[in-house]
Amino acid sequence: MVINYPGGINKKRKTISFSNRGMDLESIINKTNEYYISINRALIYKKPTPIKIVQMDKEAKHITSAYFEKKSTTDYNGVYKGLYLDFEAKSTASKTSFPINNFQNNQLNHFKRVINQKGFAFVIIEFSKLEKYYLIKMEDIFKYLEESNKKSIPLQLIKEKGMEIKRGINPPLNYLDIIDVIF
Amino acid sequence: MVINYPGGINKKRKTISFSNRGMDLESIINKTNEYYISINRALIYKKPTPIKIVQMDKEAKHITSAYFEKKSTTDYNGVYKGLYLDFEAKSTASKTSFPINNFQNNQLNHFKRVINQKGFAFVIIEFSKLEKYYLIKMEDIFKYLEESNKKSIPLQLIKEKGMEIKRGINPPLNYLDIIDVIF
Repeated sequence: MVINYPGGINKKRKTISFSNRGMDLESIINKTNEYYISINRALIYKKPTPIKIVQMDKEAKHITSAYFEKKSTTDYNGVYKGLYLDFEAKSTASKTSFPINNFQNNQLNHFKRVINQKGFAFVIIEFSKLEKYYLIKMEDIFKYLEESNKKSIPLQLIKEKGMEIKRGINPPLNYLDIIDVIF
Repeated sequence: MVINYPGGINKKRKTISFSNRGMDLESIINKTNEYYISINRALIYKKPTPIKIVQMDKEAKHITSAYFEKKSTTDYNGVYKGLYLDFEAKSTASKTSFPINNFQNNQLNHFKRVINQKGFAFVIIEFSKLEKYYLIKMEDIFKYLEESNKKSIPLQLIKEKGMEIKRGINPPLNYLDIIDVIF
């Protein structure tokens, strides 16, 4: 998982290859969203990480002590053709499956509420060792979890129910083309 | 304007009357959104305030120096019947009009992008001295600003194009009933 510090201090994976290949997943998604905004295709943002302020100098508006809070929702949401999109971007080192404990319980509950409100809930999964990216609806993930009683989503199911997103230069990960097809 | 500190340190207006009458606008909207979630009517959240971290103790995950960042978007967004909602809640002490400089320029640009993506962009305005609340589409506000070249929206126009939201106990400000009518 990518560790997100608000304000741009990101723990970056080492750049291992040419061009933007070595970008971490968060940067890839952020750049893709910036591209969508620049061409007026969609309006999708990463939500700031919530923090709990312990101490602050109010006059200087300077926070002098704070901690990160547990997220109650997901990282990304926005609007595309009037529709509400809500998703997480997750990276796994596994070559065969996506462990569901990549999500916190309150994130899973949030996704269920999004589906209930007819929003588009999905996850973008990077299989880092395979250098592959997939998009799958959360509805398909929930269905599999209920039917199988397993704790991990096989890559095979992700390939069947979801779709691969090919890496590009700009945008680096054109996931809206996949949304157009699978929702 | 209500000053929002993430993590709940709010500058509260003095409680001047019975029950929840004295709640500030942010608390009113937050309580209303919690109510909507509890009855599965909608899924709307306040976005955390973005901060710029200057210094942190990474091992202890303790932020030791940070500042608030300028918001590039709006305070609230979410999903209602599959539709994307995006809004601000603003309070004015004026009895006759709503000054447009209550918004930052980048918030106005954000609203234009939401409208362009067919999202529902609106503002909830509290006229604190009148103890009245109104909801008006940002589209109507933009139209007026362009046609009049003024810097302030007359209350009269807000009454004509928008609608009053009556205060209640729970939810304290049932704005979705207004959305059902005016969008």
